[in-house]
Amino acid sequence: MNYREESLKKHAEWRGKIETVCRVPVDSRQALSLAYTPGVAEPCMAIHENAEKSFELTRRWNTVAVITDGTAILGLGDIGPEAGMPVMEGKCALFKAYGGVDAFPICLKTKDPDEIVKTVKIISGSFGGINLEDISAPRCFEIETRLKAELGIPVFHDDQHGTAVVVLAALINSLKLTGKRKEDLKVVINGAGAAGISIGKMLLSYGVADVTMADRFGIICQGDETLNSAHAEIAKVTNLSRLKGKLADAMKGADVFIGVSAPNCVTKQMVASMAGKAIVFTCANPVPEIQRNDALAAGAFIVGTGSSEHPNQINNVLVFPGLFRGALDVRASTVNREMMIAAAEGIAACVSEEQLNRDYILPYAYDKLAHERVASAVAQAAVETGVAKIR
Amino acid sequence: MNYREESLKKHAEWRGKIETVCRVPVDSRQALSLAYTPGVAEPCMAIHENAEKSFELTRRWNTVAVITDGTAILGLGDIGPEAGMPVMEGKCALFKAYGGVDAFPICLKTKDPDEIVKTVKIISGSFGGINLEDISAPRCFEIETRLKAELGIPVFHDDQHGTAVVVLAALINSLKLTGKRKEDLKVVINGAGAAGISIGKMLLSYGVADVTMADRFGIICQGDETLNSAHAEIAKVTNLSRLKGKLADAMKGADVFIGVSAPNCVTKQMVASMAGKAIVFTCANPVPEIQRNDALAAGAFIVGTGSSEHPNQINNVLVFPGLFRGALDVRASTVNREMMIAAAEGIAACVSEEQLNRDYILPYAYDKLAHERVASAVAQAAVETGVAKIR
Repeated sequence: MNYREESLKKHAEWRGKIETVCRVPVDSRQALSLAYTPGVAEPCMAIHENAEKSFELTRRWNTVAVITDGTAILGLGDIGPEAGMPVMEGKCALFKAYGGVDAFPICLKTKDPDEIVKTVKIISGSFGGINLEDISAPRCFEIETRLKAELGIPVFHDDQHGTAVVVLAALINSLKLTGKRKEDLKVVINGAGAAGISIGKMLLSYGVADVTMADRFGIICQGDETLNSAHAEIAKVTNLSRLKGKLADAMKGADVFIGVSAPNCVTKQMVASMAGKAIVFTCANPVPEIQRNDALAAGAFIVGTGSSEHPNQINNVLVFPGLFRGALDVRASTVNREMMIAAAEGIAACVSEEQLNRDYILPYAYDKLAHERVASAVAQAAVETGVAKIR
Repeated sequence: MNYREESLKKHAEWRGKIETVCRVPVDSRQALSLAYTPGVAEPCMAIHENAEKSFELTRRWNTVAVITDGTAILGLGDIGPEAGMPVMEGKCALFKAYGGVDAFPICLKTKDPDEIVKTVKIISGSFGGINLEDISAPRCFEIETRLKAELGIPVFHDDQHGTAVVVLAALINSLKLTGKRKEDLKVVINGAGAAGISIGKMLLSYGVADVTMADRFGIICQGDETLNSAHAEIAKVTNLSRLKGKLADAMKGADVFIGVSAPNCVTKQMVASMAGKAIVFTCANPVPEIQRNDALAAGAFIVGTGSSEHPNQINNVLVFPGLFRGALDVRASTVNREMMIAAAEGIAACVSEEQLNRDYILPYAYDKLAHERVASAVAQAAVETGVAKIR
């Protein structure tokens, strides 16, 4: 099927992938007096006395804003806020279908980080959480960091951390199959944008000792004065052997390659130069860093891709619905590292020992049980790390 | 029933009067590929080429933001954005139930008109219309005027114009019963806030020649240097005989009294001083300007109130769902005077000649046919005045 052509047709038929519905009776004088005036004055005053009550007396407890500025929509680049709407609506549809979360798309007509932060803060009182989406790097780092510091509700940039969580889940199960230990792993990440940097930090937090990052200019190495601030920061904790050179140099002897980069930038020779039982995740989409069959032919033991056409799809749809479900359920004040690692372990645990094989390292994105498992793991981690306001 | 106490209980049970739902299949690999990646790239690019396509390929065609800053919530005053949520959610529930409109509450954490205008502009790309709500006067005038000028979608401040439309509807039917003609009417409006000023302008546009406004300082008269800019402007076109004095002075010989003011500010003597077959609308809520029975006893021929406990409730719930339904249906670029008068005439026409009597001048707020009639009248007026983008 030509998905893009068929999708355009479907979108014209659907005219919207989400809608709001009324949950209460309003079909009589009495019903109106309870749901609206004059009765509604009482819940208003209860919230006026204690703003936290908005999580009990309105839908805020279950509501997430899906926010973009349209600067990095899919692989399409800066196509503007209105053009981001189909992706954001799709995200909201998945939030509800898999996480039971009421999400609403807010596409911002500004690219200025100060204005984005200010706007999100100004509208945050209507929401229980903020999902940032498709905001280009390095602006996205500053925006997320500032919002996390200034809002008391979960803020999560899916392109960074959703991807990092599902990659970690895939890695956890790959290690089981290869018998490798995280402490011994040599990991190469190609692509040092929002996703790549978050994956690097996530793996280090998880206990992977040796992570090397590269981008189209080559290996990222401390001391390079051309690095931007995000790259300079990650360079301090990665590439500990201070390797310089191209991606091919980094990949020699590596156990794991993770690509969040560009089409066809990895050759069979590069995969063949990796260590035995090599793990190769090619997340570039729709055209991967190297075709799955080529990677396997060059000796890769496990291949994961960004495509639903192949086994082992590394899809952040597995993450955000359950992650926010869990965070909202315990009214977490933030999304911390422990909650993200718990989400990854929850996803990995959905594949039983009997099911686990080279072509099945992750549950399917539409597996509702997987989302429930993520939610309960995240909620538990929030409680354990003391960021949950309720249990 | 104690509505306020019962309403608090219900709100705690409901935990939200609206929710978002997913309208499309997402339960298989193929479904995900159409509603989300990779297929969704095609509708994104179609909108990127022509932003107007967002009205065809996303829910934007049917979506209204219900926006408040929490400064004038019901009669409760400035209670803050979170505390406004129960009212805004109720409004969204009514938007859907009566107009089929997908409305979403956005409560702003700012009271600065510049910031409010900027925030609404920045988020406007996700919406087909903007309903401003419970923003205090005179800030609301500037905010609405600027947004109407700068956005190409309908902007409507319900507290001003929703009230004015339903008052005009009530007046149209009252004139039929009294046999009075709009050209001969002497109308007094007490209360010169958002609603009062809009009612004054609406009646003048409709062809009522003699309108006098008053507030707690007395009759508003041109030349008074203590008037604020909104009052100075309305003073130019009202109180043509340059009457000075108190409300009681203005009411002598008046055909119509419209109160959007304060409890118990009108006496039986004041009603008794009005012309024969006097029309009295007391919209202060929950305590009216004068009790209905007292007004009738003092000689009023028709009494309308803001309360659902009495006949002739003057309720702006009759207006906004159908008004936005009609505006969205023809993709109106604005809400103009003609559309508002058409809405009033549409509401008035819901009461047939046989039904019309002193205790039944308006349809009930929960009468779905009334909302449909408003919608079609507004859509037609938008087409006739050239502000409709589709028919």
